[in-house]
Amino acid sequence: MPQFRRPLPALACALALLCAPAFAQEMPPPPSMQALLEASSPEDWRTPDPDDLLYIELAGGRAIVELAPQFAPEHVANLRALARGRFWDGLTFYRAQDNFVVQFGANVADGEPAKPLGEARAALPAEFERAADGLRFHRLPDADGWAPEVGFVDGFAAARDPAAGIAWMAHCYGVLGAGRDAAPDSSNGTELYVVIGQSPRQLDRNITQVGRVLQGMELLSALPRGSGPLGFYEDPAQAVPIRSIRLASQLPEAERTPLQVLRTDTPLFDAVVESRRNRRDGWYLRPAGHIDLCNVPVPVRTPPA
Amino acid sequence: MPQFRRPLPALACALALLCAPAFAQEMPPPPSMQALLEASSPEDWRTPDPDDLLYIELAGGRAIVELAPQFAPEHVANLRALARGRFWDGLTFYRAQDNFVVQFGANVADGEPAKPLGEARAALPAEFERAADGLRFHRLPDADGWAPEVGFVDGFAAARDPAAGIAWMAHCYGVLGAGRDAAPDSSNGTELYVVIGQSPRQLDRNITQVGRVLQGMELLSALPRGSGPLGFYEDPAQAVPIRSIRLASQLPEAERTPLQVLRTDTPLFDAVVESRRNRRDGWYLRPAGHIDLCNVPVPVRTPPA
Repeated sequence: MPQFRRPLPALACALALLCAPAFAQEMPPPPSMQALLEASSPEDWRTPDPDDLLYIELAGGRAIVELAPQFAPEHVANLRALARGRFWDGLTFYRAQDNFVVQFGANVADGEPAKPLGEARAALPAEFERAADGLRFHRLPDADGWAPEVGFVDGFAAARDPAAGIAWMAHCYGVLGAGRDAAPDSSNGTELYVVIGQSPRQLDRNITQVGRVLQGMELLSALPRGSGPLGFYEDPAQAVPIRSIRLASQLPEAERTPLQVLRTDTPLFDAVVESRRNRRDGWYLRPAGHIDLCNVPVPVRTPPA
Repeated sequence: MPQFRRPLPALACALALLCAPAFAQEMPPPPSMQALLEASSPEDWRTPDPDDLLYIELAGGRAIVELAPQFAPEHVANLRALARGRFWDGLTFYRAQDNFVVQFGANVADGEPAKPLGEARAALPAEFERAADGLRFHRLPDADGWAPEVGFVDGFAAARDPAAGIAWMAHCYGVLGAGRDAAPDSSNGTELYVVIGQSPRQLDRNITQVGRVLQGMELLSALPRGSGPLGFYEDPAQAVPIRSIRLASQLPEAERTPLQVLRTDTPLFDAVVESRRNRRDGWYLRPAGHIDLCNVPVPVRTPPA
């Protein structure tokens, strides 16, 4: 009986996004997500439009957001204008509330000088939801407490109410949203937040979501939590400077980060979801038979050479 | 129309655990969680047993875990013995995987010398679930995709299968679990993890959970993510030293942190959950009408003087 723990290959595996089965069994287990991805075809992946990729440059590196014009066309247009106008450069991340959000960009409270909006608009309509028609909504069979139906639209976790004919983005880990005041139409994208905790789905249909983090999430999620109320940094020196926020399309090709996102409307994606819904890798005694929308990974990769 | 954002009082409020209603309305809204807690009675709170509180001392401060002997009596007994034997002192947090777990304690992989277990046992039974009888299970009416019933047991998020007569702790944000290898009974509590992301409920009934973090979660959740596979730190210098792990009962009274936890089997708790299930503070256009188990806060406070 081992008195001291091995480096936990099996727990590591169970806890891994990508890992090989720990045990050969009588019947070979269904393929793991890793095996599925390794066997994927080029058509299983898509390359996001460089106009839909926002690079958030921090001292620690680059976080990459994919924008969601399908859901928030006016906000996304404004974010593009703000990026081109270098609106966010030199502003900060000034709030990090544990198990909730980091918040950044415009923030009159901490004494930032007013900055001109340039080509961007000061006021936009609320974009909390939209017509379900016209979306490539790929539904999951799994039950959800927050919405009649859940699934994915072009890589974004989403929900749908077929009776009302509307759909909306779901507030999962890594979502980028546009802060607003009490008025529904008071967001313009200058002030943004990213979800860093348990998915706050109560915000669904209450605020405009504009994208999700594809890469570099750890640069945002591990920011020191603010000690002020709601996680605001009490000392302005704690605020984390934004070096720049740019569209990938603004940068020369050589400075862009090549990446691809798994398509979410394919048989391969269904198999990936199933590999996570029911883990059968030898470590799990009991496959869950269910997966919550916000537990479904949407893999990102560096394109093969 | 304001060209620049105010300090987001309304979003801040919407995003807050504790905040006052933003607007007076025609009908006064139901009380906020903050108002409910302010109007609470002493009997709405309980003071955890100092033998059930584990203090994890890091350079940045103290994280406090409440142990769950209701669910994992053998593991909790072992954790107490390990704390008394100073087993973890000088070991490290050696893994931080984004949106998943931080892991700490025994880890032969990074060259830690074997440490004697002292009074603790090397082998324990798996404690993944238990008989539902004998638990003060306070059920939520909300649907859950992972289990037939969900609710709280003495402050711990839990699930229940009435047909099978069993109950188990739910893997929510902040849960403390005991790492294991492939064998179900291969955990002994020397190696531990805390959930720092979207609740990995697929681990429910697959691993022994031993408690949850009551305070100081931000010391764990904001640890820099490891760049190695599964979030292991590649450079041993990145590992975060554990100064000590002790039971509150081992410390003199003056060195303990006074705290109380809201009872989860009271009408007040039901009102708190409802205040979060349906937000009616003027900012929300659309109360959700639902709350997921792992979105329910269980407030902790410093006892009033």
